[in-house]
Amino acid sequence: MTSPSSRTAGLANRAHLVGLGLIGGSIGLALREAGWHVSGEDVDPGRGRRAIEIGALDAEGEDPDATLVFVATPASTVAQAARRYARRGPASRVVTDVAGVKQQIVAEVAATNFLGGHPMAGSEQEGLDGADPRMFVGATWVLTPTPATDAAAFARVRTVVSSIGAEVVALPPERHDAIVAMVSHVPHLTAATLMSLAADASEEHAALLRLAAGGFRDMTRVAAGHPGIWPDICTANAPAILDALDALVERLLQMRKMVSSRDREGLVAALDHARQARQGLVPRGPRPESSVELRVPVPDRPGVLAELTTLVGELGVNIEDLEIAHSAEGRHGVLVLALPAEGAAKVAEALRKRGHHAVLGPIG
Amino acid sequence: MTSPSSRTAGLANRAHLVGLGLIGGSIGLALREAGWHVSGEDVDPGRGRRAIEIGALDAEGEDPDATLVFVATPASTVAQAARRYARRGPASRVVTDVAGVKQQIVAEVAATNFLGGHPMAGSEQEGLDGADPRMFVGATWVLTPTPATDAAAFARVRTVVSSIGAEVVALPPERHDAIVAMVSHVPHLTAATLMSLAADASEEHAALLRLAAGGFRDMTRVAAGHPGIWPDICTANAPAILDALDALVERLLQMRKMVSSRDREGLVAALDHARQARQGLVPRGPRPESSVELRVPVPDRPGVLAELTTLVGELGVNIEDLEIAHSAEGRHGVLVLALPAEGAAKVAEALRKRGHHAVLGPIG
Repeated sequence: MTSPSSRTAGLANRAHLVGLGLIGGSIGLALREAGWHVSGEDVDPGRGRRAIEIGALDAEGEDPDATLVFVATPASTVAQAARRYARRGPASRVVTDVAGVKQQIVAEVAATNFLGGHPMAGSEQEGLDGADPRMFVGATWVLTPTPATDAAAFARVRTVVSSIGAEVVALPPERHDAIVAMVSHVPHLTAATLMSLAADASEEHAALLRLAAGGFRDMTRVAAGHPGIWPDICTANAPAILDALDALVERLLQMRKMVSSRDREGLVAALDHARQARQGLVPRGPRPESSVELRVPVPDRPGVLAELTTLVGELGVNIEDLEIAHSAEGRHGVLVLALPAEGAAKVAEALRKRGHHAVLGPIG
Repeated sequence: MTSPSSRTAGLANRAHLVGLGLIGGSIGLALREAGWHVSGEDVDPGRGRRAIEIGALDAEGEDPDATLVFVATPASTVAQAARRYARRGPASRVVTDVAGVKQQIVAEVAATNFLGGHPMAGSEQEGLDGADPRMFVGATWVLTPTPATDAAAFARVRTVVSSIGAEVVALPPERHDAIVAMVSHVPHLTAATLMSLAADASEEHAALLRLAAGGFRDMTRVAAGHPGIWPDICTANAPAILDALDALVERLLQMRKMVSSRDREGLVAALDHARQARQGLVPRGPRPESSVELRVPVPDRPGVLAELTTLVGELGVNIEDLEIAHSAEGRHGVLVLALPAEGAAKVAEALRKRGHHAVLGPIG
């Protein structure tokens, strides 16, 4: 099967995908939209055909001329595949991968034309049928060069993933692994632990869950996900996860000491520190600089959010971002809207007329 | 100042509020809407006047005839006020409170006509001006009778708080405190600890935060709140918090052991247990039995949520509840809508036509 893009693309724009799942498929869709010729393969023989059907591939099977290879297989098989593809093909070939843990893979591949990568993107929709050409728009894509990495290889991958919308952050592999252990892996294990603990601690299960308010729901939401990838992650990133778990336990024991000794000043200082750090968390999406934030306390009951978002739409104001922050206790929440500055005052006024306490402020 | 309700209400429907903040004010508004005569007082002399202005009170100052007294002062002053009001007034008087920790207060008051209470409600909007007569609609209101509590007193408070919309759960005081330690206090301290740890662990602060995805944002959101009430809570509920912290640390160390020994089966079992418990968490609001759940994976980017919620509104379908679940990694999320069964299929079809993967299912 030959698409228009395959006739116009030169050798420089030929990519090959190893592994045709959610991420591989999304890379294929995005690259083909950008004019690349994309070939691909998967251990599941039906996937290649399906990938062509949905427009993620031009052709099935290996392309000996591909100058860029993305390895998007399950983490445990990445190193072997990356090594194989890095050793053949044209001299200009660069190989990269998308696995969530980097140090081990980068060490095992050890090729100057291989560069570890980790697009921070995903979807509930698993597999090829969830693929989306816009998957990486605005997403952080970590690249993990080492002193041995060829500079041209780094520049090439950087340019390509930027061209499909990603924002590149370069980090040493071990630094990447330490950070994701801290902001993703250990928080996930902690959410699961909190949830299990709360569930097991009560025989009156139903009563306990009635007391679990919005804050607890927010904290444990990730624990509802499928355990699927976690044994691989915990195995591949064990050293960094153990370090982060130890640091967490140590700090929880410091917190314990403050509670035990009724150290009110210490508690306030610790919570204030966390508060400032949390408020410094960058907003999720890229936003125009002229955006402002509108905070509206809302009762956590059916229909209210739809009513408010619909009202904003009726006023012709585009909601740039929306977040619901729950109070620690109870069922009230705060709707946080990012709005263009020019429409925000109008929205705030309309909400106030309806009896809402709408507060405008800078994004933060 | 005399309102219509004060002329029609008999002695049985005379309530007095001690403390006129967010909760006291909301109780006043709700009771007056239900036809009660409500008096109140606050250490801040301006509050009574303001409460009358916003309709939360009929009169300032103590009402010797009030048969129901709500003590809604800061937790550390509740016991003293409750004891004082329980000892005077009509023989039928019942006193209750709204503090978030119960065992200590209930023990200190030790009166048969006092009943500890804890409405699980709140708002970002602090103070009297955030008061809302619908604050307690659908909210869980814990009552903590002891063997010494007069049965009629319990029945009375139960009936009244139910009449303003709350759903009553009765628990022994120590059981209440153990549960809130587990589902509110320790999760809050843990969120703050995770946030501080992540912030401190990196000199490249900005890079680290770029890697903090939706799951981390969800887990640490409560840490953005003001530390204000937490020293009081940690002091009053120290024993239960220490127990829950110890249990959490013990389980984190079990998790550590599984990671350290690469115990894949153990990890899957632990995460699966948490998953089932989280999926069993009751939905937030009371919903019609005919509701169904619509899950729509959405890229976590500006405008998408507004676009989808507006589309539902345009189809004339009422959104009963809305939740955004973030994936553990990356910027994608899942919009979870509770919709009436009769409109849901229409919405799902419209979303699919726009290229969204909308999945309909039962609430859960």
